[in-house]
Amino acid sequence: MSKFNRPISANDLARPAGISTMFRLPHQTDAKGLDVCITGACIDSGASNRAGTRHGPRQIRSESSLIREVNPATGAEPYDCLQVADVGDIPLCMYDLPEACKQIKKHVGSLMKDGCKVITMGGDHTISYPLLQAVKEKYGPVGLIHLDAHSDTSDTMFGNKVAHGTPFRRAVEDGCLDCSKVFQIGIRGSGYSLQDCDWAKQQGFNIIRAEECWYKSMAPLMEEIRRTMGDNPVYISFDIDAIDPGFCPGTGTYRISGTPEIGGLTTIQCLEIIRGCRGLNIVGGDMVEVSPGYDTSGNTALTAANFIFEMLCVFPGVKYSQR
Amino acid sequence: MSKFNRPISANDLARPAGISTMFRLPHQTDAKGLDVCITGACIDSGASNRAGTRHGPRQIRSESSLIREVNPATGAEPYDCLQVADVGDIPLCMYDLPEACKQIKKHVGSLMKDGCKVITMGGDHTISYPLLQAVKEKYGPVGLIHLDAHSDTSDTMFGNKVAHGTPFRRAVEDGCLDCSKVFQIGIRGSGYSLQDCDWAKQQGFNIIRAEECWYKSMAPLMEEIRRTMGDNPVYISFDIDAIDPGFCPGTGTYRISGTPEIGGLTTIQCLEIIRGCRGLNIVGGDMVEVSPGYDTSGNTALTAANFIFEMLCVFPGVKYSQR
Amino acid sequence: MSKFNRPISANDLARPAGISTMFRLPHQTDAKGLDVCITGACIDSGASNRAGTRHGPRQIRSESSLIREVNPATGAEPYDCLQVADVGDIPLCMYDLPEACKQIKKHVGSLMKDGCKVITMGGDHTISYPLLQAVKEKYGPVGLIHLDAHSDTSDTMFGNKVAHGTPFRRAVEDGCLDCSKVFQIGIRGSGYSLQDCDWAKQQGFNIIRAEECWYKSMAPLMEEIRRTMGDNPVYISFDIDAIDPGFCPGTGTYRISGTPEIGGLTTIQCLEIIRGCRGLNIVGGDMVEVSPGYDTSGNTALTAANFIFEMLCVFPGVKYSQR
Amino acid sequence: MSKFNRPISANDLARPAGISTMFRLPHQTDAKGLDVCITGACIDSGASNRAGTRHGPRQIRSESSLIREVNPATGAEPYDCLQVADVGDIPLCMYDLPEACKQIKKHVGSLMKDGCKVITMGGDHTISYPLLQAVKEKYGPVGLIHLDAHSDTSDTMFGNKVAHGTPFRRAVEDGCLDCSKVFQIGIRGSGYSLQDCDWAKQQGFNIIRAEECWYKSMAPLMEEIRRTMGDNPVYISFDIDAIDPGFCPGTGTYRISGTPEIGGLTTIQCLEIIRGCRGLNIVGGDMVEVSPGYDTSGNTALTAANFIFEMLCVFPGVKYSQR
Amino acid sequence: MSKFNRPISANDLARPAGISTMFRLPHQTDAKGLDVCITGACIDSGASNRAGTRHGPRQIRSESSLIREVNPATGAEPYDCLQVADVGDIPLCMYDLPEACKQIKKHVGSLMKDGCKVITMGGDHTISYPLLQAVKEKYGPVGLIHLDAHSDTSDTMFGNKVAHGTPFRRAVEDGCLDCSKVFQIGIRGSGYSLQDCDWAKQQGFNIIRAEECWYKSMAPLMEEIRRTMGDNPVYISFDIDAIDPGFCPGTGTYRISGTPEIGGLTTIQCLEIIRGCRGLNIVGGDMVEVSPGYDTSGNTALTAANFIFEMLCVFPGVKYSQR
Amino acid sequence: MSKFNRPISANDLARPAGISTMFRLPHQTDAKGLDVCITGACIDSGASNRAGTRHGPRQIRSESSLIREVNPATGAEPYDCLQVADVGDIPLCMYDLPEACKQIKKHVGSLMKDGCKVITMGGDHTISYPLLQAVKEKYGPVGLIHLDAHSDTSDTMFGNKVAHGTPFRRAVEDGCLDCSKVFQIGIRGSGYSLQDCDWAKQQGFNIIRAEECWYKSMAPLMEEIRRTMGDNPVYISFDIDAIDPGFCPGTGTYRISGTPEIGGLTTIQCLEIIRGCRGLNIVGGDMVEVSPGYDTSGNTALTAANFIFEMLCVFPGVKYSQR
Repeated sequence: MSKFNRPISANDLARPAGISTMFRLPHQTDAKGLDVCITGACIDSGASNRAGTRHGPRQIRSESSLIREVNPATGAEPYDCLQVADVGDIPLCMYDLPEACKQIKKHVGSLMKDGCKVITMGGDHTISYPLLQAVKEKYGPVGLIHLDAHSDTSDTMFGNKVAHGTPFRRAVEDGCLDCSKVFQIGIRGSGYSLQDCDWAKQQGFNIIRAEECWYKSMAPLMEEIRRTMGDNPVYISFDIDAIDPGFCPGTGTYRISGTPEIGGLTTIQCLEIIRGCRGLNIVGGDMVEVSPGYDTSGNTALTAANFIFEMLCVFPGVKYSQR
Repeated sequence: MSKFNRPISANDLARPAGISTMFRLPHQTDAKGLDVCITGACIDSGASNRAGTRHGPRQIRSESSLIREVNPATGAEPYDCLQVADVGDIPLCMYDLPEACKQIKKHVGSLMKDGCKVITMGGDHTISYPLLQAVKEKYGPVGLIHLDAHSDTSDTMFGNKVAHGTPFRRAVEDGCLDCSKVFQIGIRGSGYSLQDCDWAKQQGFNIIRAEECWYKSMAPLMEEIRRTMGDNPVYISFDIDAIDPGFCPGTGTYRISGTPEIGGLTTIQCLEIIRGCRGLNIVGGDMVEVSPGYDTSGNTALTAANFIFEMLCVFPGVKYSQR
Repeated sequence: MSKFNRPISANDLARPAGISTMFRLPHQTDAKGLDVCITGACIDSGASNRAGTRHGPRQIRSESSLIREVNPATGAEPYDCLQVADVGDIPLCMYDLPEACKQIKKHVGSLMKDGCKVITMGGDHTISYPLLQAVKEKYGPVGLIHLDAHSDTSDTMFGNKVAHGTPFRRAVEDGCLDCSKVFQIGIRGSGYSLQDCDWAKQQGFNIIRAEECWYKSMAPLMEEIRRTMGDNPVYISFDIDAIDPGFCPGTGTYRISGTPEIGGLTTIQCLEIIRGCRGLNIVGGDMVEVSPGYDTSGNTALTAANFIFEMLCVFPGVKYSQR
Repeated sequence: MSKFNRPISANDLARPAGISTMFRLPHQTDAKGLDVCITGACIDSGASNRAGTRHGPRQIRSESSLIREVNPATGAEPYDCLQVADVGDIPLCMYDLPEACKQIKKHVGSLMKDGCKVITMGGDHTISYPLLQAVKEKYGPVGLIHLDAHSDTSDTMFGNKVAHGTPFRRAVEDGCLDCSKVFQIGIRGSGYSLQDCDWAKQQGFNIIRAEECWYKSMAPLMEEIRRTMGDNPVYISFDIDAIDPGFCPGTGTYRISGTPEIGGLTTIQCLEIIRGCRGLNIVGGDMVEVSPGYDTSGNTALTAANFIFEMLCVFPGVKYSQR
Repeated sequence: MSKFNRPISANDLARPAGISTMFRLPHQTDAKGLDVCITGACIDSGASNRAGTRHGPRQIRSESSLIREVNPATGAEPYDCLQVADVGDIPLCMYDLPEACKQIKKHVGSLMKDGCKVITMGGDHTISYPLLQAVKEKYGPVGLIHLDAHSDTSDTMFGNKVAHGTPFRRAVEDGCLDCSKVFQIGIRGSGYSLQDCDWAKQQGFNIIRAEECWYKSMAPLMEEIRRTMGDNPVYISFDIDAIDPGFCPGTGTYRISGTPEIGGLTTIQCLEIIRGCRGLNIVGGDMVEVSPGYDTSGNTALTAANFIFEMLCVFPGVKYSQR
Repeated sequence: MSKFNRPISANDLARPAGISTMFRLPHQTDAKGLDVCITGACIDSGASNRAGTRHGPRQIRSESSLIREVNPATGAEPYDCLQVADVGDIPLCMYDLPEACKQIKKHVGSLMKDGCKVITMGGDHTISYPLLQAVKEKYGPVGLIHLDAHSDTSDTMFGNKVAHGTPFRRAVEDGCLDCSKVFQIGIRGSGYSLQDCDWAKQQGFNIIRAEECWYKSMAPLMEEIRRTMGDNPVYISFDIDAIDPGFCPGTGTYRISGTPEIGGLTTIQCLEIIRGCRGLNIVGGDMVEVSPGYDTSGNTALTAANFIFEMLCVFPGVKYSQR
């Protein structure tokens, strides 16, 4: 018998049955003994347009019951190498976003303290700020692979510093990011001004607009990214709106984050990006902006679940079978 | 030609066409020259479960294009007697609920200052608190006809005083309500404790639980209410979840407000309640908790639009033709 | 073996399988040998608001696969007494409504010529005008049991005589109706003027507004109707919007016809109405204004299919078992 | 601190967050220490028309996060008196229905062996047969309160004895039911023959057709039922299709079970029925035929969750506060 | 302060709030002082299959609230250079298509008379005929960039000359088009005969079938088109069904127009096409066949809104910042 | 007049009208006189997750009303060369999958006995096993072009030999396939073990994973396939989940078959595959796993209908016009 947790087998309990945990893995309330844990931050309290990402983790868990154990495309067998569990969702104050951010930082910091790595499901993109704060405390400034339609580096929103279009600006100010190792991929959409991304570029961010990705494999880009990252710790932040709304209609929350924007990345390009992270020193990640109400088929959430599985497959320590 | 505004006729512009204003009435940005105006407060920022009522006013306006000019059931011809317009939505800070409440009070107070009466579309039920504050400044403490599945008289939510389950408690504390003239109709659903409504009862609120309404016409109740109200100013607060979810599935926002609860009032009972307000000294009203995402047929919003029209038909000054 | 057509048994072919005909009855292209036939008029070409009833017959047929053979509530066994078939839909010109009306009259007249009675699925309510013309040619002026939220007796729409809010006015002018034997049940909703129904009343129509039906069994009304009708030929015209939108959201087509209106009849009341037609000399009927796009659950169409079955059960010649 | 399990408070963890267990109660894998447990039987393998009830338990759990702790309508405080938990779903063979029935009987029998009572969520109505077998082993023949549109007492379906329209016939043959104490409420819909219910009546079943319930309070019926039941053990079987599809569109599975049928019970009548069970010796129950795909609003599942809560409130041992 | 209209800022009024005008621009009823105006033609009266595009403009306006002010992909800042407003919808007779066409021609001609350019939202593709007539009166025969799955050059439909599959044939006959400068891009789908497009080719139309576009950038094609067009006036007609239904499911109206056809253009290719119009002498455009009922997520309408914004960005007079 | 069946013309009967048969072709109950027939196998009885493909054939027939007569992309005019009809669905036992398989084999074998070729709509992928058995009896072992996300070559499922993940293993064991001429295209998704496809490879199957297809035209692959196949009889099995869920969300049934998997084939690639079969000796085909409930827009079914039309266009005997 394996010493590692495994998803409940469909032979033991059919897929529609059972308490919904991520990937049908065991649920435990802390990170004890875990290499990787999956948690959720069910908050969208500052949505300025479409709301609903607070229900994202529940739908992602539900759809994740379709994901099996190995990755034939890459040969990864994560459950043979890592102890993984679902640690439930972070208790959060829904009426005070700065307070909620503190709670996220503290809770995730506590999950990470003995070396467990954390994948967090949103919720809205604000959560990446406290997540990166927690990561920095453990690992120092990190490289960032950021899939998104929007740069999320505004200074303020309606005068608020801690808000939904600002996480990566705040993260820079707090020293969480190694700015020369930040890659924002898939940026597009109409903007407030042509200077929207200037600040980010001045910090040294590498911004790869969606237009630069059209018709292209992401493999060469990932080769460059791997070269840049070297052995440095790297964090992956995946806003589902990076993917074209033709594939993932179920998003749409904020003024400058989580909005469906046409001409986006394909799921294939995103698979290349995440699979291209193999070999990097990944220290954590998030998957944000899934909004169930805008995709009742569940396929946006199922796509998110697939990408969380793909992230898991590139965490350090996963062995790949010869193929 | 009438001196009053009238809905754009379907003969002049077919119903699917045109900029969506409430009832196809003219849009103006202040209340100048108006007897009644309709506005929206697009905020749901404290939703602790399902979100989305911020989009309520837009969908209610869209569906209101189906409402015609007279009320054959009662003989009311509101557009022959009142100058009515759509004054657009209230500019609100979406990230600071107490601040938004101040903005609502001020904006609506300004609309009311020359005698215009206001019907406000939510958004969530929090808005009734600043609305009642504005009403009190103009009219002093008012009687209240409150259709709802929940009493919304909690003291705090997660420690917050100004929040979504608390508007009528705050309104009492601020002296906005003549408590012996408050009628809460349709209360039901599971609760936090059996003492949930004790405070309201101690203030003198008349709580008519849904169970007391089952199988009954509301006409006798309304007769009693009219007797109690006399000539006093009266405010109507209509939470769409007062209506059974079989009729209005498109609701559902809060922990103790705006949640679908079975065994509710029928639309017929609610028609009897609003039509039974004829003769009262109505000074304002609201229609809250319509959440478009939960009813893509649009019928919940169409129901809300109908009830706003019925409210309009019982405002003082509306003449009724002999029938 | 029965000499009558019977629905394909679910034992012979499971309900999801098979070419969709009404009630899984045989399809034939004329009325030869039939006592009753079911046809469709897939037209909504004058819709001034929501469109889509042209797809009504297809969805009603699809959902009708759930309807079984006997009516335990009344003891009716229609397929033991009547030869019934689906005769497909009427070929119609979709771009010329007056022309389409002529086609309907001619086609249905031809179906009726050897005594077959016809139930027609709409499509919009305009079709009742040519249907009544065809009925008149065969039977002379008829009594009418008309379930609807709207009287549909306008003189013109946008200057057009043959249009969607006018069928019963045109039918009167053409002498199709015995006006003292016309009962319009369920009328309600906002109107263009308080005189909307005056013309109908002047002709002698009996208008039973929805408000008069609230909380009441329809059995006494039907007793009165049966008394009035005596042995005269009677036609049933059923606009699905007669039923409250809480039960049948899937409607909504026209300016003054086929629009969801709150406070409507319950399905129970409508069952009492149709079942209360037992003993009358029913000579035909229609079921109009089902709009699939507004009810993807299919339940509006399923309700329509149930009521067509109930109509079939009260056609002359159906025997009722002792119960 | 209470010695009993309580739902996770929304103050501790907001309603959209957390692993979805029934009523946010703790999950345990056996019945140890429990007075009542809730489980699921995720099977619909014999559906002859619409499929999907296998996903019912998952959606009911998800929607149950909206249900609070006490029942203000009746004064019941179940979590002050009973130890309740979610014991997850029963492992079942999805390809062999008779085998699955054996698994259900054995698994539920094991949950019951130390006195824990079980409420089971379906899945399709077949499951009531093995559930009643398990109940009989513990309690002997029981009385039955059966809410349903269909009697489910066919002899065979397509030649199969253990199938979806047959559970209560099989239960009678196995001596599980005290036939004079069986009440089937809400029976309606078209049928295969007028003799469909004869066998049930011959066994002594009390069949209360929906037509007998129209416009009536169920309180007098429940008084009669309580008199008949006395202290005998009673089982409640609740097919969601007992409720009119206007309230619960999300059903529809089988040839003679789980099909939306118009003219059904209201949620109010069903509340009266379940609340009217107070004082009976309830020994178990089930809630079946919720089919998520036919009601994406979630309200059918939310209704089911409410009724499971209402069942819980009438289990022996629940104290009621003076009101 | 800018002398040009600008969208209402989300800082001044949150995106869900406000009367829905296109891009949140001011609404005025004529074209006075405008460089470009946006209007709607809410008509689908000849739909021979799926109906509903009459509601397209309303949903496009609603979704357009997500579009911001500048185009970072191209550097265009249209609101710094052009005076743009929403001029509402064209009053139309819904029951007489030829009459409606005359109304469109007259109304749009009047909007254009002082040099304002018009972008018209459909509605069905018939409207391009009167739109091109109006354009011709002002500019003479124009070049055409026509994105569509269908050529829409039938001679008649059911014997009607002015109909939905015929606009570009009529436009040729009326001398509205410079046929050697007509490009139809994305043509595909099953056909009535292999000669369907022969007439168009004989006129000199350049037909670029979807198959010719597969896997390819549209940039080279646009270079060729720009070369062909030179300084001649050019009109853009965009049928949303040009885009693959994987991106835009919300279409589907006519027999040979507005039908979802697989294997279509990607949104990326269409962005290249519209952006590739930069430098051309664009004199007007339309966006047709958005049908809200077939895409409740709103993403088809949001895509349409994006492309109208992209059109705006290539109108003559728009300056592009250095990037 | 043609000696061949033709779809009912939209000129004779508008597309929304008429009894729904495949492509609006005549319905006959046997294969007499036919070159090709289309049938359905409405079974999904072993679904271990999402159910509903039993309703696939009904929705595909309904959507097929949009497909016209010729294929302009290839020049094929199938109805000028082949006698085609809809032969309705196969009567099946829904409760006994092995029995149902025998019924399919026998029924389809009988349809094929005089040389008619059969295209079968599923239902789930299990049906390919008996279909291939019937094909083998007529033609001996065949080559296979299999579009799918999953290999469907498991040995057993839950101990069952005849089940949904096993059809092609069973087909090999029964000698139905010429294994060196089997091409499985589009295989992807998470797996149970990295050895999942080893058995298939050992038989000589050519497995083309989706990853190998990314960014590529399928034309070269089809050239290779045509070379390999030569004149041998070839069967096409098309699981709609081969196509990326961005295009076809409406699928999802089984543990290892019919599940939406990201990174799939585009509709364009699948068009190239089917069109690339031109010249092959196609002897039959199937289209499986369309699940209507997961795509209410109908576009998944419409896509399936298109591909069935494309299959028809490459059957031997179809002439292609010079283009």
